[in-house]
Amino acid sequence: MATTPTGSAPPERHSRSHGRTRRPYWVAVSATALLPLAAVGYVIAATPRSRTTAQHIKPTPLLDTTAHFLLAACLVLAVAHLAGRLAERLGQPKVIGEICAGISLGPSLLGRFAPGAVGWLFPQQTTAMLNGLAQLGLVVFMFGVGQELGGMRLRGAARQALLVSQASLLLPFAAGALLAVPLSERYLGTGGSPLAFVLFLGCALSITAFPVLARILEDLGLTRTRPGRLSLFAAAVGDGGSWLLLAVVLAVTQQAGPARLLIGLGGALALAVVCVGPVRAYLARRPDRDGTAAASPALSLLLVAGIAGTSVLSASVGIHQLIGALLAGLAWPAHRRWAAGAAAPLTATARTVLLPFFFLGFGLSVDIGSPSTDGTTALVLAGLLAAAVLTKIVGPGLCARLTGLPWRESLTLGVLLNARGLTELVVLQIGHEARLIDDRMLSLLTIVALVTTVLTAPLLRLTGAHRLPVTGGEPVPPKEPAASFSARTP
Amino acid sequence: MATTPTGSAPPERHSRSHGRTRRPYWVAVSATALLPLAAVGYVIAATPRSRTTAQHIKPTPLLDTTAHFLLAACLVLAVAHLAGRLAERLGQPKVIGEICAGISLGPSLLGRFAPGAVGWLFPQQTTAMLNGLAQLGLVVFMFGVGQELGGMRLRGAARQALLVSQASLLLPFAAGALLAVPLSERYLGTGGSPLAFVLFLGCALSITAFPVLARILEDLGLTRTRPGRLSLFAAAVGDGGSWLLLAVVLAVTQQAGPARLLIGLGGALALAVVCVGPVRAYLARRPDRDGTAAASPALSLLLVAGIAGTSVLSASVGIHQLIGALLAGLAWPAHRRWAAGAAAPLTATARTVLLPFFFLGFGLSVDIGSPSTDGTTALVLAGLLAAAVLTKIVGPGLCARLTGLPWRESLTLGVLLNARGLTELVVLQIGHEARLIDDRMLSLLTIVALVTTVLTAPLLRLTGAHRLPVTGGEPVPPKEPAASFSARTP
Repeated sequence: MATTPTGSAPPERHSRSHGRTRRPYWVAVSATALLPLAAVGYVIAATPRSRTTAQHIKPTPLLDTTAHFLLAACLVLAVAHLAGRLAERLGQPKVIGEICAGISLGPSLLGRFAPGAVGWLFPQQTTAMLNGLAQLGLVVFMFGVGQELGGMRLRGAARQALLVSQASLLLPFAAGALLAVPLSERYLGTGGSPLAFVLFLGCALSITAFPVLARILEDLGLTRTRPGRLSLFAAAVGDGGSWLLLAVVLAVTQQAGPARLLIGLGGALALAVVCVGPVRAYLARRPDRDGTAAASPALSLLLVAGIAGTSVLSASVGIHQLIGALLAGLAWPAHRRWAAGAAAPLTATARTVLLPFFFLGFGLSVDIGSPSTDGTTALVLAGLLAAAVLTKIVGPGLCARLTGLPWRESLTLGVLLNARGLTELVVLQIGHEARLIDDRMLSLLTIVALVTTVLTAPLLRLTGAHRLPVTGGEPVPPKEPAASFSARTP
Repeated sequence: MATTPTGSAPPERHSRSHGRTRRPYWVAVSATALLPLAAVGYVIAATPRSRTTAQHIKPTPLLDTTAHFLLAACLVLAVAHLAGRLAERLGQPKVIGEICAGISLGPSLLGRFAPGAVGWLFPQQTTAMLNGLAQLGLVVFMFGVGQELGGMRLRGAARQALLVSQASLLLPFAAGALLAVPLSERYLGTGGSPLAFVLFLGCALSITAFPVLARILEDLGLTRTRPGRLSLFAAAVGDGGSWLLLAVVLAVTQQAGPARLLIGLGGALALAVVCVGPVRAYLARRPDRDGTAAASPALSLLLVAGIAGTSVLSASVGIHQLIGALLAGLAWPAHRRWAAGAAAPLTATARTVLLPFFFLGFGLSVDIGSPSTDGTTALVLAGLLAAAVLTKIVGPGLCARLTGLPWRESLTLGVLLNARGLTELVVLQIGHEARLIDDRMLSLLTIVALVTTVLTAPLLRLTGAHRLPVTGGEPVPPKEPAASFSARTP
């Protein structure tokens, strides 16, 4: 009893029982040690050595597939981390660095200086395994985006937000579409029609990176400024619209006949309605049972299964699986503690650990170095960049000014809406996979996405965003700006 | 100003500004809507339809690779969830259900009734992507196991724990090795020597599923009983020993000549020493900066990279990458808040969401239905089962009784140590990948692992574990049993 893990026995009983059990104890110790070892020794002596000779042992490579996969994963994450740190040093959002890390591991940089290295680091089998991580991360990430979009609430400012969102969505879309007409012959992918190409380019320019924007606003402390909240709302509406347009474009392209097209669009519509309607309502009715926001393992498991299921459904009706993941996010009641608690660790892990593998996959599929050699291409790039930047900054900026925002805030708003970042890459890869655009246009638009996102931080310094009044200069509670409003209306 | 998101403007200014901005506002709304739409309309009209005809559009399959991967992932997770729920209903640990789910999706069950379904659900490309999830989940899971092993502290009870651990490790090892001698000719894999086969079978029987055991103890509320804590400690020591033996066996098998063997063992030893020594010491010195235990994204990223890196190192010296992951867990200072905060969400996600994919991969590689047809094999299975159960229950049980534990607690201890569960599967797959054992022995040992784990709960009811006194019947603080001891010694 004395030597139990409780250590709770009084000392005198300790010594007595110690004395009582000493001899049999040491007998047992030596017995349980020596007898087995003797048996093993006999076994080792008894087993034939016949087949231990080297020619019977297949020489195993230094690293098998799994180890190679782990090597690649370690490299990808390490480079992503370093590049992210570097980007933060340069006053850029971390995701920019992670994107550049993925691109630099592909033909764009590493492949240029060490062509053999890319092939050795990322053979087909390893790439497939990494791709599994990337795709899971991507659907969970898109689920998170949908969750944030669904959580967006419009506080007052309806007219202003409507106008800005509309300008931020439609003007770049039109510019991209117009610009695409002369380019369609040159850059059309093998899988799409000129019309699909034109519409896709419109989508590509109209995207605003909602998640990246949110992070930029947090980093720069602009979340509680008027332009900050307006841009976030406009980005939400704009991204929703862009994804909708993209879904239509994809449906138009992927479906062969008009019959299948109608079926596809109908299915997509039905899926969207069911997700945002009954499913969300059903989930939102579930109360928060226990006080803790800790996720139950079963719930996380079900959630990932549900996200994957919705994605498959949307893919099966011809729109991209990521749009299904977005819908799953819209259906998830983020305002419920149990729902947020289940989703938070998943989306966090996906953004942190899994997205770098998507950036790698993207980087392996694009070579942004190649187009720069060509004069015409450089011209096209300049045109795309100008269209992208101007339509985003000038259009919404003017509209904001028109609705009474001061110049500085209006410009800040336009600059914020100009960040395309990560979402743009996702859209580009979808278009590239659907063969709507060819490799050169993919790399051109990648450059556009990177440049517009990188421009955000310095342009914000130009517009003096850091001197903006927080929520119109009036004091607000640290967390929730709307509280100062609702507090006034009991 | 009135219509800013702050909604903080007084009403009279609201109406005025509303009036001021009405006309230009609606002009802007219609302009930003109509002009772009007109442009897009023109574009749609202008773009040639020439290439929209169906023959130019490659007919895309209903589900591309990614969507198929998501379909498989959704199915795997859903089945794992249902099976886990069912297992809990049957009073079994959930992981048993998840393991059975993975096995049932393979040739053992689904392949038996619908041979085509397995091939259609899990084609090579999809399996590779799923395997990426499985392998990442596995290394992170093993990291978590190492973390728990490193956190194990021996409170009093040194002699008892030493004897029980030794018995729980060496007796089954010897029994497995002895039993393996006659079996080696029949079940030897193509890659290993009879000696390696014999030693591996010893390891296979001596494993106790430390993580599963911890979960069982929690489920049954035995964590604070003497047998509970003793078994947990014995399992920790036993698993440590088993992994060590396994590392040696793998090194012996994988390395061609004695020179490379020495290099491999030396490298493994150096890696272990560095991880548990300087690295752990360095990490443990880092103080908890902020109060929050929330993981910084950068830290999680680095942690996963570090786990993968350590695994690759251990693989490159010829011991399995999972042993490297175990070492990384031992090096991680789980007692630090920042360290625990960074590791917790990762290990939780890995256990919940990623491990089912390992079970699937395992299930695809094993067919536990096949051996049952053969009489001799049934005999072998019975022998393995008897050896596994008896050596685990009788040996440690007797030793515990000898050191003063009552019979009931001693038996409970033995029963607890008999749970092999998940860890056993990992060991088996390692041995199977190293071709130390053939497919039939893999399925036999899988059955042993499942049966010994399933037996735990009912046997515990037989031994009346639920009537055990908590820490010797004295009241203890709910959280930490050692507190009652340390409180007595100020």
